[in-house]
Amino acid sequence: MPKKTVLIVYSGGLDTSVCIPMMREDYGFDHVVTVTVDVGLPAGELKQAEEKAKLLGTEHYSIDAREEFVTDYIFPAIKANGDYQGYPISTSIARPLIAMKAVEVAKKLNVDAFCHGCTGKGNDQFRFEFVMRTFMPDTPIIAPMREHTMTRTWEIEYAQKKGIPIGQSINKIWSIDENLWGRSIEGGLLEEPNYAPPEEIFTWTKSWKNAKSTPTEVTIEFANGVPVAIDGVKMSPLDLILKAHEIAGDNGVGRVDIMEDRMIGLKVRENYECPAARIIIPAHKALEDLVCTTEERAFKVLVDQKWGELAYEGLWFDPFKDDLEAFINQIQPRVTGAVTLRLFKGSCQVIGRASKYALYNEDLASFDSKTFDQSEAVGIVKTHGMQARMYRTVKDK
Amino acid sequence: MPKKTVLIVYSGGLDTSVCIPMMREDYGFDHVVTVTVDVGLPAGELKQAEEKAKLLGTEHYSIDAREEFVTDYIFPAIKANGDYQGYPISTSIARPLIAMKAVEVAKKLNVDAFCHGCTGKGNDQFRFEFVMRTFMPDTPIIAPMREHTMTRTWEIEYAQKKGIPIGQSINKIWSIDENLWGRSIEGGLLEEPNYAPPEEIFTWTKSWKNAKSTPTEVTIEFANGVPVAIDGVKMSPLDLILKAHEIAGDNGVGRVDIMEDRMIGLKVRENYECPAARIIIPAHKALEDLVCTTEERAFKVLVDQKWGELAYEGLWFDPFKDDLEAFINQIQPRVTGAVTLRLFKGSCQVIGRASKYALYNEDLASFDSKTFDQSEAVGIVKTHGMQARMYRTVKDK
Amino acid sequence: MPKKTVLIVYSGGLDTSVCIPMMREDYGFDHVVTVTVDVGLPAGELKQAEEKAKLLGTEHYSIDAREEFVTDYIFPAIKANGDYQGYPISTSIARPLIAMKAVEVAKKLNVDAFCHGCTGKGNDQFRFEFVMRTFMPDTPIIAPMREHTMTRTWEIEYAQKKGIPIGQSINKIWSIDENLWGRSIEGGLLEEPNYAPPEEIFTWTKSWKNAKSTPTEVTIEFANGVPVAIDGVKMSPLDLILKAHEIAGDNGVGRVDIMEDRMIGLKVRENYECPAARIIIPAHKALEDLVCTTEERAFKVLVDQKWGELAYEGLWFDPFKDDLEAFINQIQPRVTGAVTLRLFKGSCQVIGRASKYALYNEDLASFDSKTFDQSEAVGIVKTHGMQARMYRTVKDK
Amino acid sequence: MPKKTVLIVYSGGLDTSVCIPMMREDYGFDHVVTVTVDVGLPAGELKQAEEKAKLLGTEHYSIDAREEFVTDYIFPAIKANGDYQGYPISTSIARPLIAMKAVEVAKKLNVDAFCHGCTGKGNDQFRFEFVMRTFMPDTPIIAPMREHTMTRTWEIEYAQKKGIPIGQSINKIWSIDENLWGRSIEGGLLEEPNYAPPEEIFTWTKSWKNAKSTPTEVTIEFANGVPVAIDGVKMSPLDLILKAHEIAGDNGVGRVDIMEDRMIGLKVRENYECPAARIIIPAHKALEDLVCTTEERAFKVLVDQKWGELAYEGLWFDPFKDDLEAFINQIQPRVTGAVTLRLFKGSCQVIGRASKYALYNEDLASFDSKTFDQSEAVGIVKTHGMQARMYRTVKDK
Repeated sequence: MPKKTVLIVYSGGLDTSVCIPMMREDYGFDHVVTVTVDVGLPAGELKQAEEKAKLLGTEHYSIDAREEFVTDYIFPAIKANGDYQGYPISTSIARPLIAMKAVEVAKKLNVDAFCHGCTGKGNDQFRFEFVMRTFMPDTPIIAPMREHTMTRTWEIEYAQKKGIPIGQSINKIWSIDENLWGRSIEGGLLEEPNYAPPEEIFTWTKSWKNAKSTPTEVTIEFANGVPVAIDGVKMSPLDLILKAHEIAGDNGVGRVDIMEDRMIGLKVRENYECPAARIIIPAHKALEDLVCTTEERAFKVLVDQKWGELAYEGLWFDPFKDDLEAFINQIQPRVTGAVTLRLFKGSCQVIGRASKYALYNEDLASFDSKTFDQSEAVGIVKTHGMQARMYRTVKDK
Repeated sequence: MPKKTVLIVYSGGLDTSVCIPMMREDYGFDHVVTVTVDVGLPAGELKQAEEKAKLLGTEHYSIDAREEFVTDYIFPAIKANGDYQGYPISTSIARPLIAMKAVEVAKKLNVDAFCHGCTGKGNDQFRFEFVMRTFMPDTPIIAPMREHTMTRTWEIEYAQKKGIPIGQSINKIWSIDENLWGRSIEGGLLEEPNYAPPEEIFTWTKSWKNAKSTPTEVTIEFANGVPVAIDGVKMSPLDLILKAHEIAGDNGVGRVDIMEDRMIGLKVRENYECPAARIIIPAHKALEDLVCTTEERAFKVLVDQKWGELAYEGLWFDPFKDDLEAFINQIQPRVTGAVTLRLFKGSCQVIGRASKYALYNEDLASFDSKTFDQSEAVGIVKTHGMQARMYRTVKDK
Repeated sequence: MPKKTVLIVYSGGLDTSVCIPMMREDYGFDHVVTVTVDVGLPAGELKQAEEKAKLLGTEHYSIDAREEFVTDYIFPAIKANGDYQGYPISTSIARPLIAMKAVEVAKKLNVDAFCHGCTGKGNDQFRFEFVMRTFMPDTPIIAPMREHTMTRTWEIEYAQKKGIPIGQSINKIWSIDENLWGRSIEGGLLEEPNYAPPEEIFTWTKSWKNAKSTPTEVTIEFANGVPVAIDGVKMSPLDLILKAHEIAGDNGVGRVDIMEDRMIGLKVRENYECPAARIIIPAHKALEDLVCTTEERAFKVLVDQKWGELAYEGLWFDPFKDDLEAFINQIQPRVTGAVTLRLFKGSCQVIGRASKYALYNEDLASFDSKTFDQSEAVGIVKTHGMQARMYRTVKDK
Repeated sequence: MPKKTVLIVYSGGLDTSVCIPMMREDYGFDHVVTVTVDVGLPAGELKQAEEKAKLLGTEHYSIDAREEFVTDYIFPAIKANGDYQGYPISTSIARPLIAMKAVEVAKKLNVDAFCHGCTGKGNDQFRFEFVMRTFMPDTPIIAPMREHTMTRTWEIEYAQKKGIPIGQSINKIWSIDENLWGRSIEGGLLEEPNYAPPEEIFTWTKSWKNAKSTPTEVTIEFANGVPVAIDGVKMSPLDLILKAHEIAGDNGVGRVDIMEDRMIGLKVRENYECPAARIIIPAHKALEDLVCTTEERAFKVLVDQKWGELAYEGLWFDPFKDDLEAFINQIQPRVTGAVTLRLFKGSCQVIGRASKYALYNEDLASFDSKTFDQSEAVGIVKTHGMQARMYRTVKDK
């Protein structure tokens, strides 16, 4: 009789660790595979996951997807000024990549089922399962936390019984997700819309007290819509993102505090920390504002909004996303140049932008000055709002 | 033979002062009427305009439209999160009111023509003339600066010849427009997209050095979409706007630096100073985010964008604006509550929001918890992106 | 011990009849209430439902909601040019009213549960339940067809066993829903996108052979966005809709054949017969085109599209729908006038339109001719596409 | 002294013929070049233009651009379901090509100026001049009809004096523009919105009396978004368009009667005859409806609307148009398949569609049926409109 195998998308945390014995004992799998994908895990967590997996006797795979995450997920997000309701979609865009890597292992090992640790109220179940179902439509997906609605207390007890190291899980107040594009912090009072988040939840951005005491001017250089250098220093994509986090964070820039409408319809207050996004995206947008026509600027707002919705919903492989990206990518070759920002104590202000594709330059300022006589504006002004004026003449009939 | 009368929309500045003798000598008017509308003029300017008008012998009218500007122009802008390309449309929305007051005088005096001081490259000619043509379609409009493309030097010489006091006009580097909703500063190198604006152009917002040295938490209370109190103190609309300027400005909040596409198609770099707008509008938006559904939030972005375009173009009496405002106003009764901001050294962060119309509250967080079982999410997740998944199965045929 | 009562939304058809004994025997209700709402049932069906209910011993309510359906549901749809993907949303907009009437009875009788006959693949379950949950959030809803996925054969056998008259159910090929705004016909091969629907499914629209042999010119008069007279004869709302069906149907106008994306994500081919909608809505739109500005026309397309989506989804009481209707209703007072159509053998062509609010009339054609000199167009033409031209000068750098 | 040369965009009609002597006598050109571009001129008109040019002694160029017009202008319009306010933009998209061909000649001959025959009220001046200014920004453009506002009578007298053959110009009632994509007919009473157009203005579409007496079923096959075969017969692009005109016209399909908002703001009633467009575009759209996701369908409406506006305005080389086409073209490879239409006496009804990229087929109808249990719909239905229901609970606070 063939051994039945399940693949767990494994973070090393309490939820997914609990899944390991459960898959064996309650779901009847003979063989458990765990896959941990590094898209920017906090220091030590990858190793910790590996050790736990070893202890719990799974066939474990650690996958370093950090560079792929930057070039194939973060960079498209930058081109789209990636945002959903004020949130720079950091967790959202990592989920499809993690699922994709899990699918790659699953295909190679020919597993019989997927397992993930998401609950039934959040967004991640949608993001993971969309990718799994897209690329392995016939493989069942098990979500024990959704099926059984377990409490944290129950999980800790269960873990202790099964010999799962629980570390600081017992004292954990905040539920944190961290990757190269940002941190999300949830739990406790943070959901309450009118509760000012305590300083302690922030680790990447300095407080107003500790932030640098003089402004930092930073110049980000873009080529074809993506950042390639900071302050004149060319960097690899990964290094550039890390450097951007550091500069922004040192100046207290990157805290996000919003009301977010989740996919199932719940409105929740969310706190994020996205220093790099909060300087790169305003810079990218400022450059677009320099090189795009009025109509392009106005319409790209709609395109970006739709892109942000799809990315938030984890629909990374939706054809509509391809369509939107075709629009977006048509513009990006022009999004080449440099933007200077002034960062200080939490504020970020664009103070300069330059591009050889600018629809402004000293010559263009006098564009048409040879042929455009100011008096020729008369006709333009006279016809301005003509139908609105007609309307006034007929409206009181 | 009847005396011919012209009405000059009069700021008291060089351009419109030059128009006075010109109307008599070059355009053949017997009688010159000047109208100065106060929508938040810098201290002393109204009086100065009156004195100049007296000196130059016009029939002068000073009109205090400050309260009307706040309630009938700034407040609708707040409801629409009034913005065009990052600019809180401060000058834009004052022009229709100024023109409207000029029309009222013009109708009473039965004048034969209007005169204004706008050039042929800017936006203000559109805003003034749209209102004049809407309400007095048969009255000609004269724009000497547009007709003759005069230089500043020529104007100063002409003014001296005609005995017009020119004050500091000779040394003026910046061209400034100031009203209750903001200041715009133009001239010199400021148009250059990559030139960091010098500190001296800002007078309402403190520099990072001089701004308050500890954060300010401010709570703005809204009723029906408009601000009614700050930090618990109810204020008249006018007082509230002035107070908001003070609080924001003291914390260095309110500087706007953008690439703006003008109506005739020129892209220019613009600098504005709009402290009140930069705290009231984020607060208003944060409250909308709390009380609106997901779909309402996404669509209001489009409605606000269109409203901003119309307001920027001075189409204050366009029926399309009425339509958009009907949509906007349908939502506003719910935009009632309080938002807390943390201001510091140029940064403005929403840190709390509350409303009795919130689609979140402790009870609602558990909304449907009686009936919604997490396991019921399975069906939702399974159908998520179904067509996108179908697409993948057929796309490589 | 109190008697437990269930209210069945009752059409008199097989599905909902089967629910009656099932509610008693399988779900343990002591008392069954049936509610049949007439929003334009085929002749005889209301009576038939009443007789069946009597036979099966329920407490039955027949509610004539036809006038309310026309004025409060069809009329708003006309104002919004009500459409979803080419479908004039006839069934969609009837469901909320039917549910609403059921809720009214349910509140009066204080029932313990709702029951409806929808399956789990279609749209109607969403439309019914949204209204029930909105107005009676704590009352459970039972959908036996969804829970048990019964086959038609099983239902017929069960019905025979329980003494439910099954009429022609046995021979029924098509599944038909009919109300005052249209008929939908499903079943058999009709779902196949490439199968030309047979003539027999159409009963309101004549075939090309039987349609009138000469064109019919019909003039529909509107006031405030709704039709008030046909060919000069004022009619009640209900009579007008019936007359419109007759005129359009006699000329073979009103067949709709589209690919429709259902709410759960299935794409299906649908056939509808909506004669009145297919002449009234084009006429309404033609009148809007006459009285609205260019921008209003373009933006109302988006507003109408969103309205159509909400109406299709049965979200009749969504605040977003109120917002969109505020926009729509702002325009409608101008949508007053008359439109003439030429109908013939399936075609419908607008051939004339008139309104006192037209932004065209003989005088307005010469609008501005006093002041607008053709030569003044030069400036407008010269600045046309200025940024696009700038783009060409920089793009190959 | 070098000879000064002007290039006239020459139709052979009265207006542009009058320009020839005028350029010599009133504008001082030594040398007149005429260029006639055939994008589907009525039979004989090209030859007639050549003869007139010879008679009037110009250096004449006749350019056959018909194939280029179909593949590079009509085909992109089909992909975008090319439409502006109901008008299939036939004249609009020909103008840029005509201007482009004129520019090519102008560059080769190094001419000193362009001349065209457009007036100052219409759209064509914008379309011609945008292309000329884009590609030869320093070459002046002369528009005598706009400068002088000549009457028809004056032109005829002038032509007679100068020996220009005037043909039937004297008796011409209608002003007609004709190309491969459609005819536009203007003049006389046709502008009046409530005047039913007389049968005589139509030459490509048969009247209801003369149209074929039985329905025609026609199948149009598409590959990559463009038509490639009719009724199974592959054809060249040009032949296919001509065949489509014939089939549609024989069935009286293709008349367009709309209120159109011109670029300068005038609203006018327009009559067009576009038989091919009126069957190809509905077929193209029906195929898109079969292969696109719900979201793609909804958003493409916006993209197509914007594309139609740009095309109408003659902004054929605007970067925004490139962006929109990138979106559109991303979808087109899937728009491959066949659509069957039933044409009869002016009506056109889609009755079947098939594509290997359909998001529907017999297999997909049962898509997920292995995994999707109807009872799983419960969760989807329960969360439907959740925020709207929350809103109802808080709105009356």
